[in-house]
Amino acid sequence: MTSQSFPPAIFQSFSETADPKNVAPRVAALRAELTKAKLDAFLIPRADAHRGESVPPGEARLAYVTGFTGSAGIAIVGVEKAGLFIDSRYTLQAPAQTDTTLVTIHETLQGGLSAEIGNYVREGGKIGYDAWLHTPGEIKDLTEKLAGKATLVASPNLVDAIWPDRPGAPVSTIEFLGDNRAGKATSAKIADLQAALLADKADATVLTLPESICWLLNMRGRDVPNTPFVLGFAIVPSSGLPVLYLDAAKITPELVNRLQGIAIVADAKTLTPALTALGGKTVLIDPASAPEAIAKALTTAGAKLLEKRDPVLLPKSRKNDAEISGMREAHKLDAIALAKFLHWFDQQAPAGTLTEIGIVTALEAFRREEETCVDASFDTISGAGANGAIVHYRVTTKTDRALASGEIMLLDSGAQYLSGTTDITRTMSTGASTPEQRDRFTRVLKGMIGIATARFPKGTSGAQLDTLARQHLWQIGQTYTHGTGHGVGAFLSVHEGPTGISPRYTLPLEAGMILSNEPGFYKAGEYGIRIENLIVVQQSPVAASYLDFETLTLVPIDTRLIDTTLLVPAERDWLNAYHARVWTEIGPLVTGPVRNWLKLATAPIG
Amino acid sequence: MTSQSFPPAIFQSFSETADPKNVAPRVAALRAELTKAKLDAFLIPRADAHRGESVPPGEARLAYVTGFTGSAGIAIVGVEKAGLFIDSRYTLQAPAQTDTTLVTIHETLQGGLSAEIGNYVREGGKIGYDAWLHTPGEIKDLTEKLAGKATLVASPNLVDAIWPDRPGAPVSTIEFLGDNRAGKATSAKIADLQAALLADKADATVLTLPESICWLLNMRGRDVPNTPFVLGFAIVPSSGLPVLYLDAAKITPELVNRLQGIAIVADAKTLTPALTALGGKTVLIDPASAPEAIAKALTTAGAKLLEKRDPVLLPKSRKNDAEISGMREAHKLDAIALAKFLHWFDQQAPAGTLTEIGIVTALEAFRREEETCVDASFDTISGAGANGAIVHYRVTTKTDRALASGEIMLLDSGAQYLSGTTDITRTMSTGASTPEQRDRFTRVLKGMIGIATARFPKGTSGAQLDTLARQHLWQIGQTYTHGTGHGVGAFLSVHEGPTGISPRYTLPLEAGMILSNEPGFYKAGEYGIRIENLIVVQQSPVAASYLDFETLTLVPIDTRLIDTTLLVPAERDWLNAYHARVWTEIGPLVTGPVRNWLKLATAPIG
Repeated sequence: MTSQSFPPAIFQSFSETADPKNVAPRVAALRAELTKAKLDAFLIPRADAHRGESVPPGEARLAYVTGFTGSAGIAIVGVEKAGLFIDSRYTLQAPAQTDTTLVTIHETLQGGLSAEIGNYVREGGKIGYDAWLHTPGEIKDLTEKLAGKATLVASPNLVDAIWPDRPGAPVSTIEFLGDNRAGKATSAKIADLQAALLADKADATVLTLPESICWLLNMRGRDVPNTPFVLGFAIVPSSGLPVLYLDAAKITPELVNRLQGIAIVADAKTLTPALTALGGKTVLIDPASAPEAIAKALTTAGAKLLEKRDPVLLPKSRKNDAEISGMREAHKLDAIALAKFLHWFDQQAPAGTLTEIGIVTALEAFRREEETCVDASFDTISGAGANGAIVHYRVTTKTDRALASGEIMLLDSGAQYLSGTTDITRTMSTGASTPEQRDRFTRVLKGMIGIATARFPKGTSGAQLDTLARQHLWQIGQTYTHGTGHGVGAFLSVHEGPTGISPRYTLPLEAGMILSNEPGFYKAGEYGIRIENLIVVQQSPVAASYLDFETLTLVPIDTRLIDTTLLVPAERDWLNAYHARVWTEIGPLVTGPVRNWLKLATAPIG
Repeated sequence: MTSQSFPPAIFQSFSETADPKNVAPRVAALRAELTKAKLDAFLIPRADAHRGESVPPGEARLAYVTGFTGSAGIAIVGVEKAGLFIDSRYTLQAPAQTDTTLVTIHETLQGGLSAEIGNYVREGGKIGYDAWLHTPGEIKDLTEKLAGKATLVASPNLVDAIWPDRPGAPVSTIEFLGDNRAGKATSAKIADLQAALLADKADATVLTLPESICWLLNMRGRDVPNTPFVLGFAIVPSSGLPVLYLDAAKITPELVNRLQGIAIVADAKTLTPALTALGGKTVLIDPASAPEAIAKALTTAGAKLLEKRDPVLLPKSRKNDAEISGMREAHKLDAIALAKFLHWFDQQAPAGTLTEIGIVTALEAFRREEETCVDASFDTISGAGANGAIVHYRVTTKTDRALASGEIMLLDSGAQYLSGTTDITRTMSTGASTPEQRDRFTRVLKGMIGIATARFPKGTSGAQLDTLARQHLWQIGQTYTHGTGHGVGAFLSVHEGPTGISPRYTLPLEAGMILSNEPGFYKAGEYGIRIENLIVVQQSPVAASYLDFETLTLVPIDTRLIDTTLLVPAERDWLNAYHARVWTEIGPLVTGPVRNWLKLATAPIG
């Protein structure tokens, strides 16, 4: 069965949607709007008001104007010059997608705007921005960077004025999780949140992150790709019913009925008046995510802002037993698909004819054999040979290449099952490998096992554990430039806070938190290696005050890439026990040649 | 040779100086002063104006009034009640030393004052304090804790008024390190500091820490035990000569001459007028250590305060080649003394008649055979059996006990040689040991080796490395409640900032920094284990951007306490290579039975 035998991918598109030829007319149209609005420049961020990794088509303003489709970045279009600010992930992609004769690209450390923005506007000029697309902190930071050279002015969004066929807000079906899937009733979650608000002496909070609202109301939708979001806002008072603000098209009698006694549903157009009605109250907002428009509406009305982390994030990150059961189930379903895929891959790859897109298509097809698989949790990173060294590589028809026999394949993918979210990376041999590749693969594996087997006292943060994953690469003067792990939602965002495993995650890990465990090694121009399992923090049997991890992912690790002389006995024992568990749990769920392949792939190493 | 054969210890006293009977008359006298001064209470901290671990006798006000001699704590004496606030290190010691019928003891997390201080003064009352003994931050924090119940009033020190025979300021000989020992001329250090002040747009800094002043001026003294300090203050302007403020008795024509062209020497009494003369200037002070009296004198005069870390601390922590050479030399001298001591200990201990004090006396005697050994770097922690589990144990004639045969001995000690400072802990078997003890000792050793062999990219902090030392104890649900390592000065403070190895040290480690590496395990009521070497950060051969450690300490680790089945080959190889190095470097420096003992103690393990 070759990749041509699979149905076309529907979760992922490989087309290069950007056309640099569109940039000139759109920038020209925007400049005409600038003149009308008496502005000297306008800011176009990638973010929407909900700060999601995926945005609906009508919010993809940065891509519409500049052609750049990366997941982070911001442009400034001035009356004479235009600039695009990106981070190092998009060094190659940005100039390929935009019209570089019109747009100057700036690479900054965190991808944000630099002081160079001042060069895009005349001395004393006015830069317009959409207050729904920036946090107050971002505007303050930008004001400091401008150092009086120009002023920032909130304005209607000028891009919307030049976008005749701009898609409307997404309207997808809203589903509700039963308590057996959510593990906790909405009313109990709201009660906990209201108790937290009272403890903080806050009269209300405004939730702007869809993951918070969806978790709180045990609700999921399909408003954006990859994450089962219902886009909206919510105001949760410290007592009384929360109000959910949705686009009017989404408000059905069924929805209103379903939320009866739990939450009031209101037209998103009434959000601003509702904020104004909070005058005199103390309102908790998260300065890292709340749009400036919300903060401004509140302060203008005379509300007192309490700036704190979104109070849903931490409770949401502590998965309950039902959520963990769902995640275990999702990982079994995913393991079946991966076993089928890896069996197919091992048969096909040595011929050297597989392509990166063909591999994504095949993997998606195997996953879609399971009907509760409703989406990919992100665009698969399918890196053949040297493309594996591009950490955030996304294959398009323009970059697609064949995987030559003897090359290493890096495949980072995930799915959304109704039961939970997966995220897995495997690095596969296609036959030969070099001693250096086996050395690096084994050091990455040792780091991954170091996290998987860690036990640690309560109060320990991911920052403290990160070194366990890196130490074996550090020994040879190597490391990887990404974090070791990120939080993962339960049938929700594949990347979620507030904890993770890297020096920047200093919050203590707690039982129920689900994280990725994904050290890697990248040799530019040659190959990339990453091994990623999801893990859940659990009470450790070793002592009441200790935690450890259960590994959720149940997919063989390619033992052909291991240099067994580098493993200590405890690491070898862990790997053999892991593979034995994969065989025990997944073996009965597959048949025929796939089962035979799995038996071999999970055989113990000596 | 028994411990009775050794000359009495002079670096360490074992007497219990505290006499609870003194507390009543002294508290009564202080209360009379309170009435005269129209105050309702007075604060008596352990700290002096220089924040040193050791204070001169005339600054030991806390011990004078309460009898408590711990190295941290603070008392409040009110007109009716008195309280003593300590941390968990002094749970047993404080009630044994003070009069608990008069003084209530409070144990707080960091040893500071808690809100309970409000109970020692009437509503609306006045609490006096000596502004030279508190930082502005401490006074601000205390004001918040009082929450308006009472006010804090700077006052002359009332303890001095009731202390008829209070010792005067110490006057010890001042010595200057030649450039061959200091490695950098004073003029060059001052030039660097002045460049840093200019970069910070500061016109001057006030140095209040003796370690900063002594390092800057390549100067050492004997004003306090254990650390070769000259106590004083300094004002360093961004251009021109620094002024060193010393007690008038210390100012000799030789000193003035020696500093000619480098620094001006002035009477400490002229410090306050000199601060006043900085009106209108920007003055850098360290909020963590500068007395409030200094901050107040500056702000009252109209100076602008720039609150930043003492600008000497970081440069001082990066030891230069001459300092590292000196530290290596000091560790060789210390290794000779320890080899003699451990040989003696191994002969004597099985009889079960050695005492904790006898062990300290013997060790000091062996160290003092080297004439450049001028002091202990701290009071030796000599913990026999169960006393080894008391992390900060200091033996006195009252607590002294014999080391029974079969017990484990924990010995943490250090010396000040003219060439450098040492700090070493060894845990010794006296014959038998239990499997549990060997398991714990081996896990501690594995952690110590984990730090010793770490390699890491520049920018890595001690917080990131700490886990390498704890992971093997964490595996069995155990840890130790102290840091893994502290900075160590070069013939200066045995504890110095600003880096270390524990979750609270987030500054990057840099080449030349010297740290302790001392994981431990403590079983209350049974035994304590700690293994401590000093290490120096160095460029790693593995990559230009990587660092690693050289171990400075060259003393055998007791292999009788190792469970070799718990070591991986790399750990066993490290230990054997370490012992081979000890034999190669120290073997030629000892003779006769000590040499024979060292040969056996450094023999490889299988």
